[in-house]
Amino acid sequence: MISDSIIIFTNFAIKILLMDNTRSTICAIATAPGNGAIAVIRVSGPDAIAISNSIFYSKNKIEIKDKEAYSIIFGDIKEGEELIDEVLISIFKNPKSYTGEDSIEISCHGSIYIQQRILELLIKNGAILAEPGEFTQRAFLNGKMDLAQAEGVADLIASESRAMHQISIQQLKGGFSSELELLRAEMLNFSALIELELDFSEEDVEFADRTALSKLVNKLDKSISKLLDSFSYGNAIKNGVPVTIVGRPNAGKSTLLNALLNEERAIVSSIAGTTRDTIEELFVIGGVQFRFIDTAGLRKTEDEIEQIGVQRALDKIEKSAFYIYLFDSQLMSIQDVAEDLSQLSQDVPRIIVANKLDLISTERLSEFTNSLLKPLTISARQKGGIEDLKKALLEKINYKENQNNIVISNIRHFEALTKAKEAIDRVLVGIESNIQTDFLAMDMRDASYFIGSITGNISNDDVLGNIFQNFCIGK
Amino acid sequence: MISDSIIIFTNFAIKILLMDNTRSTICAIATAPGNGAIAVIRVSGPDAIAISNSIFYSKNKIEIKDKEAYSIIFGDIKEGEELIDEVLISIFKNPKSYTGEDSIEISCHGSIYIQQRILELLIKNGAILAEPGEFTQRAFLNGKMDLAQAEGVADLIASESRAMHQISIQQLKGGFSSELELLRAEMLNFSALIELELDFSEEDVEFADRTALSKLVNKLDKSISKLLDSFSYGNAIKNGVPVTIVGRPNAGKSTLLNALLNEERAIVSSIAGTTRDTIEELFVIGGVQFRFIDTAGLRKTEDEIEQIGVQRALDKIEKSAFYIYLFDSQLMSIQDVAEDLSQLSQDVPRIIVANKLDLISTERLSEFTNSLLKPLTISARQKGGIEDLKKALLEKINYKENQNNIVISNIRHFEALTKAKEAIDRVLVGIESNIQTDFLAMDMRDASYFIGSITGNISNDDVLGNIFQNFCIGK
Repeated sequence: MISDSIIIFTNFAIKILLMDNTRSTICAIATAPGNGAIAVIRVSGPDAIAISNSIFYSKNKIEIKDKEAYSIIFGDIKEGEELIDEVLISIFKNPKSYTGEDSIEISCHGSIYIQQRILELLIKNGAILAEPGEFTQRAFLNGKMDLAQAEGVADLIASESRAMHQISIQQLKGGFSSELELLRAEMLNFSALIELELDFSEEDVEFADRTALSKLVNKLDKSISKLLDSFSYGNAIKNGVPVTIVGRPNAGKSTLLNALLNEERAIVSSIAGTTRDTIEELFVIGGVQFRFIDTAGLRKTEDEIEQIGVQRALDKIEKSAFYIYLFDSQLMSIQDVAEDLSQLSQDVPRIIVANKLDLISTERLSEFTNSLLKPLTISARQKGGIEDLKKALLEKINYKENQNNIVISNIRHFEALTKAKEAIDRVLVGIESNIQTDFLAMDMRDASYFIGSITGNISNDDVLGNIFQNFCIGK
Repeated sequence: MISDSIIIFTNFAIKILLMDNTRSTICAIATAPGNGAIAVIRVSGPDAIAISNSIFYSKNKIEIKDKEAYSIIFGDIKEGEELIDEVLISIFKNPKSYTGEDSIEISCHGSIYIQQRILELLIKNGAILAEPGEFTQRAFLNGKMDLAQAEGVADLIASESRAMHQISIQQLKGGFSSELELLRAEMLNFSALIELELDFSEEDVEFADRTALSKLVNKLDKSISKLLDSFSYGNAIKNGVPVTIVGRPNAGKSTLLNALLNEERAIVSSIAGTTRDTIEELFVIGGVQFRFIDTAGLRKTEDEIEQIGVQRALDKIEKSAFYIYLFDSQLMSIQDVAEDLSQLSQDVPRIIVANKLDLISTERLSEFTNSLLKPLTISARQKGGIEDLKKALLEKINYKENQNNIVISNIRHFEALTKAKEAIDRVLVGIESNIQTDFLAMDMRDASYFIGSITGNISNDDVLGNIFQNFCIGK
């Protein structure tokens, strides 16, 4: 059993410990690395204003320290007599800033040389270089956002597709956090119901109606399960939905990939496959990032090396969200297709696609469209049917634009929710088997602990370290 | 003769023409490309505030249009109901902005996806994508800076060394421009002196004292020559001071390069030489960017291919600011060194360096130090004497930190100054050969025109196009 008071105490101690850290003033380049028209350097901490003020000179001798929050001032950054740059200074004051501390943003000319000179100058004047994610960590420690929101910031910055952007901005805005708060409130509700019994535990009475308890816990279980279920979608969205493309040689797999690619102004990158047999292509279709895995052609072969290639294709299918089976409608009959399919995974969902539609007669076409397999018909070469295929891809992952469902995409959240569900399931079994009330209370407290760890109500140094080390510097 | 009134009229017409362009509102990502903690999008033009206002929603329903200049407001960017990002908006109002127009800077989360969405949203709402350098071009057209200053902005952003930073920030701050203004004022002074004569030209009298005129023109000539002379230094600083390293095989050239390199936290990059025989290394020493050209070893050889290599090393020397002749103090005598040097360029300055100082006796060492060649003594392997060599490198280009001399580094300025000097020289010859006054006036007007073209008092569409197309987008 994890005692609430110990949790609260530990949490408090950690915050005190970490707070010590925040007495320093940190600085970092916040914009993307490299030369740009402008760059922004962030300074945050108790001396942010004093340090910036000591290197800044405005024409009218206005000083940063005399300006109000949310105002901008133009002037020079100098090291002694040497002019480093003309800059704009944005002023934010505790607690109304990103970090909750006094903060300064210096907008300078975007030369790497100037960025580094200003950073060095800030450090010479008492600031220290920020660790990755330290600005956001301070925002968390100062109560400006919870841990799930802080993780949303990192995901938002990394998001490359509309779908991932949607998940992470909802997380940043606290949508996920309020869902978790609801869960914790219902857990407290449960605790309140059985608290009375614990007070009278010696007397072995049941105050709380077991049916009502059971109903409440079932509801919790359902909510957590729904969140857990969203992870496979969320995780796929985050890392790219893995889709394997299989088919016999010359079915037109590469042409199909190119056809999908050419239609999109998308972020495209090639990843060398782990084996020479597979190639992965990352690209965004209709706001969702897909990871297409092009495999060696399927064929019946006695050749051992080729057999390995085919086996690898089959393995890839098992790890995919779904697969595309592509065939040449000119060469293959429905029977051939059915035979191929019988050798492929029956568990992983699939889209059957008939290619080279431009080369066959309408009679042959209707053979396919009337068959039970109901393949999508396309011409990869002529880019016919590609829109329908895209729609099918998006339907397969059940993607709807602007859907407001909470989706979890973070493995830490998934693990915490899994543990919370395990605890909840123990409570359910406990109620059914009429277990002692204090065991129920203990398990429910565990569940509440794991939920709380997601938003950082309960957290420790290691967890925080792990989370923020993956941030970029300057955030 | 280029008539002043035509110049003024043409200039006016161009400004009117270009002004038309500035009725649009432009937008661009201003920070370096890629993912960062934050990114900044710039909007400038008459509708900058209205367009930004139409996509921005603050918690307290405060609108951008109601905020004062030089203030910051926090809120959401939305496309319809869809939340794109939480942003900070900085507000600048005509004429107190970089461009001199109403301007907005949107500071958003630095995901590429978000940057592009906001940019697209601004365009949907009436902004157009800025051309490279268009913000600075507008600043020029609105009289916020002259053309030399605008070019200083681009050089400042590109500057990778302290020396280049110094040249460009002085140019940005108008140091070069005021020097040019002084020249133009003296040219006007000259014109005033001979104006009276022109009014009475029919009567063939000399009002202006030829000695005084001659003195004035000589002074102008000297000033322009000084600026022209600074170009070889400025150009080297801008592109890296070219230094060829020669010596016999195994003299320790590579070790020396590494020793120089290791001591510097410098921007390092390798450039593949145009031939396989030479390697170029760019790096910054004591604030100056050097371009070291490592050559094939010098040796006497009958082998034709090797002879070509040696010849290429000699050619490289001719194109260098100076060269380092490096020799192995263990193997070579003063006579050997003198013999090698006699075959190298006598025109290009050189630094003679004795390497492997750690392997020779003090007696042998004194032989070298007492010789007339006075080589610098180093041990590249043990990093001995490297500081002295660096000092020698900086002395060779006469580099002094924080020197306030005007240095020109821009080829356009060099060409304009060259033409101005030619005109001035015609005036000088004219005075000496007692030429007609109106020819003197004409040549002086030409000189004044070329000086004016640098700051953009006189400019045309092509010139502006050429200058600003080399800017990055967002500046």
